[in-house]
Amino acid sequence: MKALHFDGRNLALCDVEKPEREGEALVRVLKSGICKTDLEIIRGYAKFRGTLGHEFVGIVERAESSDWIGKRVVGEINVGCGRCHVCKQGDSRHCSDRTVLGILGRDGAHAEYLTLPLRNLLKVPDGVSDEEAVFVEPLSAAYAITEQVEILPETKVLVIGDGKLGLLCAMTLALKSKDVSILGKHKQKLDIAESQNINSILLESLAKLPKKSFDVVVEASGNKTGFEIALEMIKPRGKLVLKSTFHGSTKAEMWKVVVEEISIVGSRCGRFAPALELLERKQIHVTKLISEEFSINEGLKAFEKASQKGVLKVLISM
Amino acid sequence: MKALHFDGRNLALCDVEKPEREGEALVRVLKSGICKTDLEIIRGYAKFRGTLGHEFVGIVERAESSDWIGKRVVGEINVGCGRCHVCKQGDSRHCSDRTVLGILGRDGAHAEYLTLPLRNLLKVPDGVSDEEAVFVEPLSAAYAITEQVEILPETKVLVIGDGKLGLLCAMTLALKSKDVSILGKHKQKLDIAESQNINSILLESLAKLPKKSFDVVVEASGNKTGFEIALEMIKPRGKLVLKSTFHGSTKAEMWKVVVEEISIVGSRCGRFAPALELLERKQIHVTKLISEEFSINEGLKAFEKASQKGVLKVLISM
Repeated sequence: MKALHFDGRNLALCDVEKPEREGEALVRVLKSGICKTDLEIIRGYAKFRGTLGHEFVGIVERAESSDWIGKRVVGEINVGCGRCHVCKQGDSRHCSDRTVLGILGRDGAHAEYLTLPLRNLLKVPDGVSDEEAVFVEPLSAAYAITEQVEILPETKVLVIGDGKLGLLCAMTLALKSKDVSILGKHKQKLDIAESQNINSILLESLAKLPKKSFDVVVEASGNKTGFEIALEMIKPRGKLVLKSTFHGSTKAEMWKVVVEEISIVGSRCGRFAPALELLERKQIHVTKLISEEFSINEGLKAFEKASQKGVLKVLISM
Repeated sequence: MKALHFDGRNLALCDVEKPEREGEALVRVLKSGICKTDLEIIRGYAKFRGTLGHEFVGIVERAESSDWIGKRVVGEINVGCGRCHVCKQGDSRHCSDRTVLGILGRDGAHAEYLTLPLRNLLKVPDGVSDEEAVFVEPLSAAYAITEQVEILPETKVLVIGDGKLGLLCAMTLALKSKDVSILGKHKQKLDIAESQNINSILLESLAKLPKKSFDVVVEASGNKTGFEIALEMIKPRGKLVLKSTFHGSTKAEMWKVVVEEISIVGSRCGRFAPALELLERKQIHVTKLISEEFSINEGLKAFEKASQKGVLKVLISM
């Protein structure tokens, strides 16, 4: 089968064997999405070798339970050992022996097939298109914020970063708060937010904003200065949600966190079920975030496109 | 009156006028305590000029309400404007126009007299000695952690730093958790913790400790490496409490906070009332932390002593 394989140096379209893992379901991938993490892996983050990709929608072709066969599914990307304390509490996202689809010890979704345990799969409701379903993973990561931090209608929220993740965060937060702003560099991207009742702020206008004025700040810019801006804009006792897995060390004025008694909340993955529900109820319109779709035969082009400035989500179809 | 005055360059024992502020009570100071913040101010932190000191016990000599006269008191150090949104919510600790005793815009406690609004004062119960009462400010700062983060009997807690604040944090946390450890460099200081059912760990034995094994880590070391160690020792989804107002920027692997979904909680001041209660009920034995006491006439010697390695609390008596 075809797979976009990273050998530690280069990404290549390869012909590899269909994956097989004991006790796991075989999924024929319909579409996958390129995430910033994929691009970071190519730059050396996570030291992963193998087939990239962790955002997908597919059809179950083989499974231990026959009622899954032929079903359209998405899949939670963390696969815990199933035996440790953390897994038994139902949170395999933090199992220390976990594998992660296309990120850690497990081939990923930019391929014609993948395997995952049945417990990781969720059926996609009929009303959700393939294009929408590919967004379940990043959408659940964005929605997770609302499960970690209390967001009320009057909570003043700032999202830093107008990339895919920043936009998804702003869109999900705007379901809870009436006062969400997004800060970014690209007018075109910010316009997507504006169309969904989110106040957009160009980075060049940042100086005009009153400092220490937001109850919640979400850092989703993926660059070094995002955290500094977040510390400037947040109110005393505010909540700063960190979303960027910016790789490398950040210089941080941590004493400000003490003096202003700020809480910083690290936030990575979320649960898929509520994200699927948002899509089914048409509460979030994710397809506006699609910049282009490529066939897997043009997978390298797809990655080239995804790494260009100003580009949002790039999809790959199998 | 005598006062230890910092002019931006040097600390000196000066003869200054008795303080007077409209609507505030005049307090004759009995004893004051030298805090690490005092030493940091001398190094340029907070750009404060004036009489240092914010830990004290004293007697009210003049007040608008006569039933306070002659009462032994301690005092909350943040004085809010009383008019803004934050003050009206009762939290003048974060009023943006606040003054802070001996730290920001207000002469402090290393002097024969100070003034504070009556609303900042708390009467000291008879069973609490002067030596104990001086500890109310740092003790309330330590106890604040238990109000910010849930500590259960089985919560595994690590306190980094065996200075005064680290020891007070460990001692108050040990009232809630049966599994508190303290990490430090000084066997003598750690022994104080050991005597109060706290597990002590010398820094040189750190490598033997399993990483990612603590539910809650309190960073109270006041030095650059404390935060790094905290990130290594904390469990995924753990709570990292920042107590040190280490001045300057810290290099931090903030992506770890995201991947492990850690929460960082900045923690500065606490409420005085619960700290006074702990002392009254003899639940915390703070006098073990006193290294030496000096008369204000020897105030400069007291500061010299307080800045030496291995020294804990130095008191000044008026």
